Amino acid sequence: MNYRATIYYLGTICKVIAAFLVIPAIVCACYGEWNEILNFFYTVLVFLGVGFAFAPKPPADKKLGSKEGILIVGLSWILVSLIGALPFVFDGSIPNYLDAVFETVSGFTTTGATVIVDVESLPRGLLVWRSLTHWLGGMGILVFILAVMPASDGSAFQLMKFESPGPQVGKLVSKVRLSAAILYVIYFAFTVLQVIFLLCGGVSFFDSFNLALSTAGTGGFAVTNDSVAAYESLYVEIVLAVFMLIFSVNFNVYYMIAIRRFSAAFRNEEFRAYLIYIAVCILAVALSAMSAFGNFWEALRRSAFAVTSLGSSTGFTTSDYAQWSELSKAILTVVMLIGACAGSTGGGFKFSRAIVVVKAAYVTMLSSIRPNSVCVVKLNKKPLSKTETEGIVNYFVVYILLIILSVFLLNAFGNGFDTSFYSTLTMFNNVGPILSSEIGATSTCAGFSAASKVVMIADMLIGRLEIFPVLLLVFPKAWSKRF
Amino acid sequence: MNYRATIYYLGTICKVIAAFLVIPAIVCACYGEWNEILNFFYTVLVFLGVGFAFAPKPPADKKLGSKEGILIVGLSWILVSLIGALPFVFDGSIPNYLDAVFETVSGFTTTGATVIVDVESLPRGLLVWRSLTHWLGGMGILVFILAVMPASDGSAFQLMKFESPGPQVGKLVSKVRLSAAILYVIYFAFTVLQVIFLLCGGVSFFDSFNLALSTAGTGGFAVTNDSVAAYESLYVEIVLAVFMLIFSVNFNVYYMIAIRRFSAAFRNEEFRAYLIYIAVCILAVALSAMSAFGNFWEALRRSAFAVTSLGSSTGFTTSDYAQWSELSKAILTVVMLIGACAGSTGGGFKFSRAIVVVKAAYVTMLSSIRPNSVCVVKLNKKPLSKTETEGIVNYFVVYILLIILSVFLLNAFGNGFDTSFYSTLTMFNNVGPILSSEIGATSTCAGFSAASKVVMIADMLIGRLEIFPVLLLVFPKAWSKRF
Repeated sequence: MNYRATIYYLGTICKVIAAFLVIPAIVCACYGEWNEILNFFYTVLVFLGVGFAFAPKPPADKKLGSKEGILIVGLSWILVSLIGALPFVFDGSIPNYLDAVFETVSGFTTTGATVIVDVESLPRGLLVWRSLTHWLGGMGILVFILAVMPASDGSAFQLMKFESPGPQVGKLVSKVRLSAAILYVIYFAFTVLQVIFLLCGGVSFFDSFNLALSTAGTGGFAVTNDSVAAYESLYVEIVLAVFMLIFSVNFNVYYMIAIRRFSAAFRNEEFRAYLIYIAVCILAVALSAMSAFGNFWEALRRSAFAVTSLGSSTGFTTSDYAQWSELSKAILTVVMLIGACAGSTGGGFKFSRAIVVVKAAYVTMLSSIRPNSVCVVKLNKKPLSKTETEGIVNYFVVYILLIILSVFLLNAFGNGFDTSFYSTLTMFNNVGPILSSEIGATSTCAGFSAASKVVMIADMLIGRLEIFPVLLLVFPKAWSKRF
Repeated sequence: MNYRATIYYLGTICKVIAAFLVIPAIVCACYGEWNEILNFFYTVLVFLGVGFAFAPKPPADKKLGSKEGILIVGLSWILVSLIGALPFVFDGSIPNYLDAVFETVSGFTTTGATVIVDVESLPRGLLVWRSLTHWLGGMGILVFILAVMPASDGSAFQLMKFESPGPQVGKLVSKVRLSAAILYVIYFAFTVLQVIFLLCGGVSFFDSFNLALSTAGTGGFAVTNDSVAAYESLYVEIVLAVFMLIFSVNFNVYYMIAIRRFSAAFRNEEFRAYLIYIAVCILAVALSAMSAFGNFWEALRRSAFAVTSLGSSTGFTTSDYAQWSELSKAILTVVMLIGACAGSTGGGFKFSRAIVVVKAAYVTMLSSIRPNSVCVVKLNKKPLSKTETEGIVNYFVVYILLIILSVFLLNAFGNGFDTSFYSTLTMFNNVGPILSSEIGATSTCAGFSAASKVVMIADMLIGRLEIFPVLLLVFPKAWSKRF
């Protein structure tokens, strides 16, 4: 266990976030929010203080193993959330520190659930900081550091492995560092593109910038109290829906397109199946929710936005799903449960994992009548190794057990079953809106008890970091030198 | 695929059930319900007609493979439920045939959910038939046939494997037929013992007889509208709680005790852990539900009954859990989810499976930081083989996927999420009461739509027969001669 290197990376992350805090500070300056600049200045000081205390200079041995990688990822996300919450407290817009941490974790994990009832009253700088946490958390803070900082390929791999979502590591090329850089270039390019598209629709630059950051991370924080409904624009909804879809697809596909390997891009089973699945769900929800809207086109519009928003784990809303028919809510619940593609910025269980789990279940059934036969699960027309299939199946098992635990805890803390279930689902899969009929998808999380919020914070982190980096922090065995 | 033998067994089962129908007919005679006797007579005729049409004489080749075993189990349970529903329809007490099938499936699968609002108005004979379905379904109809009919050991094994609950086959001795006989002897003895105990408490013979049949199968049908609350007797509650516990424990333990291998009985990890787990849950529910009852002893009494009733998957009630605190309901929900011990007459996921799944999840976590190490799951201090662990984990995966599917369907058919979830949970695990706050644990299932009832019927059968015998019926591949 290389403690020096672990602490060094934690410090480095703080320094990098300090640098990013310059962006909201500049926004404050642009809008004349001079008091607000001070709040960001203090926060930068804390980040830099911790940064230089932890990482005065690079350690001699920067080598990271699996264990260091998992600890750095888990601890850095918690550390960054704890300090990143300070601007909200300094400003007084979220006086309670736990609430501020909730908001920041919701930001970094790209959940987008908020405790702020009146978002529009927030200083501009603070709104940008909220959106920026989505953007950083979407692709990953450590992935960013890998892209700009020298690190041995082996060590970089350990960080990327645990921060990138999906069953396989999102390596595009053999070099991890180059992969990280390419990912961020694609990510940046699409974000800029979305800002341009929104500007074309007459959305203000400030709103476009924030919406793009939020969409890119598949986060869901908006700068309006009514989320996307506030724009009352079909064009804006279409742009957002398309970009939510773009950011919820495996970035591998874009890389393949960029290097002109088009056939490779479209051979990706997850990609093709995902598009079909989203289209089918949109149609199904539109048909089943029609009674709530009167005509098919209105229902289709609402449905397309809802399915891409919840399916990509973004969580922007244009209407309150709680009022829709039970069937349409049931479909949306499954859509939330499955989540986005692996290797995207989207959350959830991940579409490719869902494919493998369903295939594995089918194989299990067949083998119950021919016990001695060997059945294999295939993905992209290639058989998965037993270890890969097992890994995904075991991930599902842990995932379900944690969902049961979270629902149990939230229920035990006095929330109704409905609310406990939907809160767990939305937090765990980093979506945002709570579909419970008791709460409603357009409400905030301000009303939950402190204990419930702590569970939800854990859920969000566990969901974004795919369980192990968070869970292993509470296992003393993971910390011991011997293990 | 041996079609002749498959059909032969289906016919035999019908003949056996026809014989059992003599019992309720005798009860009718005792109570002078002469019209009712006719109804049973017609039903016997149908059973015998099908029986002799399917099994005029034993086929030359009675050999059964895995596939025949699974088909016989699945088909026979459906067939027996379809015909077993007739007395309710003939009598007119359940005029709707689908409702009657629901009631009969609920009986055979030992679920105990009912569509009859006024149970007390039913003829005595019909009440006994209801309770008898619990008794037969609890230990298994095919297991009974194995105990009394000659069959090759290999073929018998295929039937027992798919009808007996639990991850391993409930063989007590090396001969399958002898195992089946021993199981039924233990089962019969405990049932008689319970009748005696209830008689000692002043319960009428009729009620004692029915309650004992119902408890033995961990079913839950009562002969009173208020279930066990009607007796207003602590003694009755204690007797029932103790016997519910007895019937939810692996019968292996009793066999070991019977042949005086006491240490072997108590070395059983599932048995010991189960007793501790039930005790802890009783205490936890008592403490958390105290506010609803005023004092600890009253809460402990209600809690002990609720935990043994739901944990054993029986489903007798003494109060409406829907009114209890959220924490106590949350605990009861987990208790329902886990279920009874393998090799008992109880339902649910099974306690030993839950132990293995939790251990497997722990092993998964550890192996995420040391990917190349080999971790094994142990049960009863012996390491499980990889195939055994995988089998249980895969079972869990299919189990969860089916629960999701069922909740989705019930929700889609217009039931609220809360009701959909609790209905699925109670049907799938063959418990009975629906803990949903919208419905209440003491209500009947009469109000559900026909489509919902069909889903629930499938859930009950899938839950009792542990998925594959029912699910494979809808896979054409399972029927082909080639496969």
